[in-house]
Amino acid sequence: MRGQIQEITSFSNPRVKWVSSLKEKRNRDAEKKFFIEGFREIQKSIMENPKGSKKFPIKLDCLFVSPECYLGSSEQALVDKVNCPVFQLPKKIFEKISYRDRPDGLIAVAETPDATMNWELSSPLYMNPILIIEGVEKPGNLGTILRTAEGAGVGLVIITDPRIDLFNPNVVRASTGTLFTLPIFISSIEDVFLNLKKQNYQIYAVTPDGKKLYTSANMDLKSAFLFGSEQYGLTDFAKQNSDDSLYLPMFGEADSLNLAMSCGIILYESLRQQNKG
Amino acid sequence: MRGQIQEITSFSNPRVKWVSSLKEKRNRDAEKKFFIEGFREIQKSIMENPKGSKKFPIKLDCLFVSPECYLGSSEQALVDKVNCPVFQLPKKIFEKISYRDRPDGLIAVAETPDATMNWELSSPLYMNPILIIEGVEKPGNLGTILRTAEGAGVGLVIITDPRIDLFNPNVVRASTGTLFTLPIFISSIEDVFLNLKKQNYQIYAVTPDGKKLYTSANMDLKSAFLFGSEQYGLTDFAKQNSDDSLYLPMFGEADSLNLAMSCGIILYESLRQQNKG
Repeated sequence: MRGQIQEITSFSNPRVKWVSSLKEKRNRDAEKKFFIEGFREIQKSIMENPKGSKKFPIKLDCLFVSPECYLGSSEQALVDKVNCPVFQLPKKIFEKISYRDRPDGLIAVAETPDATMNWELSSPLYMNPILIIEGVEKPGNLGTILRTAEGAGVGLVIITDPRIDLFNPNVVRASTGTLFTLPIFISSIEDVFLNLKKQNYQIYAVTPDGKKLYTSANMDLKSAFLFGSEQYGLTDFAKQNSDDSLYLPMFGEADSLNLAMSCGIILYESLRQQNKG
Repeated sequence: MRGQIQEITSFSNPRVKWVSSLKEKRNRDAEKKFFIEGFREIQKSIMENPKGSKKFPIKLDCLFVSPECYLGSSEQALVDKVNCPVFQLPKKIFEKISYRDRPDGLIAVAETPDATMNWELSSPLYMNPILIIEGVEKPGNLGTILRTAEGAGVGLVIITDPRIDLFNPNVVRASTGTLFTLPIFISSIEDVFLNLKKQNYQIYAVTPDGKKLYTSANMDLKSAFLFGSEQYGLTDFAKQNSDDSLYLPMFGEADSLNLAMSCGIILYESLRQQNKG
């Protein structure tokens, strides 16, 4: 049931106004829709989940295309594959709804999935390591963290009490689509501790005032690494309930490493200890 | 000889136009001046170099201030310390020349130092590790790399054949001022190899097609890590002349790790091997 391609020629077309309105969180919330721009991102969003995967499925609502912006021929192949209405726009209008400096002519609108972690359904967890981010503030940082977590083979990412919308267009963009390929869920910090402890995970708080040098922690067992927000760090609850706390050595100022960088370094040390890196 | 504070009240003041013009590289080149915004950045730029340091000195040409934008009292203390003419602007005009969303009321203009590596003067080199970036393209990436290199205790950063201006305002900003505290120089890739080999450095090319897993390299000797540009990677010359080539394991797609992240992971592995991390 491939949708027919409908042409839009006017800036004042209600569909154009509607998709632009999704740049604002309150509109995304009201419509329960979000915005996926770019070939790679859309392709990842419609990839079939691996068998047994706990990933939330993405359902495309519609696709906006502008063949004048395509960078190659794969864009058309993707358009032929999607199972939703397709709207074709002239470049000038497309650029108006795009989030990018150099759009590649593809923007999808998808239904916002429920990303709440269902601990009961998901258990037992067998992933190592698990990455937990408490209250991340900057969409671009979260995207970079997801991209890095994918590289490091992280099995599960949990975002607790986020101050940002997981489906913010800048998360999608900075994640280069890994938002759709990594198992990533939202949970409360209390549920994270309750469930991971029950399943014998070692929960390591990573914080500048950590007690142990990160390389001296035993990461080859079931490990979960817990990072705080850019501005406020970890909550007291998180620090007090962790099994141990780790720090990264730093020769410069306390903020020499940003959140994503700290995650990457810890995750690659974990790979090394697991003899995978 | 503290400069007197001169008030500027008009958008059309030639000083305002002049400082705005420095946002463009050709004007920075013509004037041999660049732009340092922010308390932390300016403070680092005027810090005295440690004894024996090979850092280029920064000479401030003038300072633009807007007390309405100050975030605390340290801004005024810094203004009292500088040794150059100071121009005071109303917030509205200051915001026009600022690079930031939330300016802190301080912008300095400095003379562009000569950052060319003087191999003769700098030898022998005793730093471990040395970080070499070949042809970096994005100012923000270079800034993040410098910030991370400072955290990892890198002794020397060499940028070869840069496609960007080392003193681009976005390098200054993303480096959070470490551009002024880390020894960082520009050289040709040929001179890098010639001089580092003469001094018995092991030069490791870090590249997705590297031959050796990065953790299996011996990094506790005199090591230099060589990274390519975001888009083009390392040149053939760099690959062919390196002593060895290293790769980072990657579970996702080839571009899961960005350039700065790869640098951070390698540099922290080097710290670990040196028993410093």
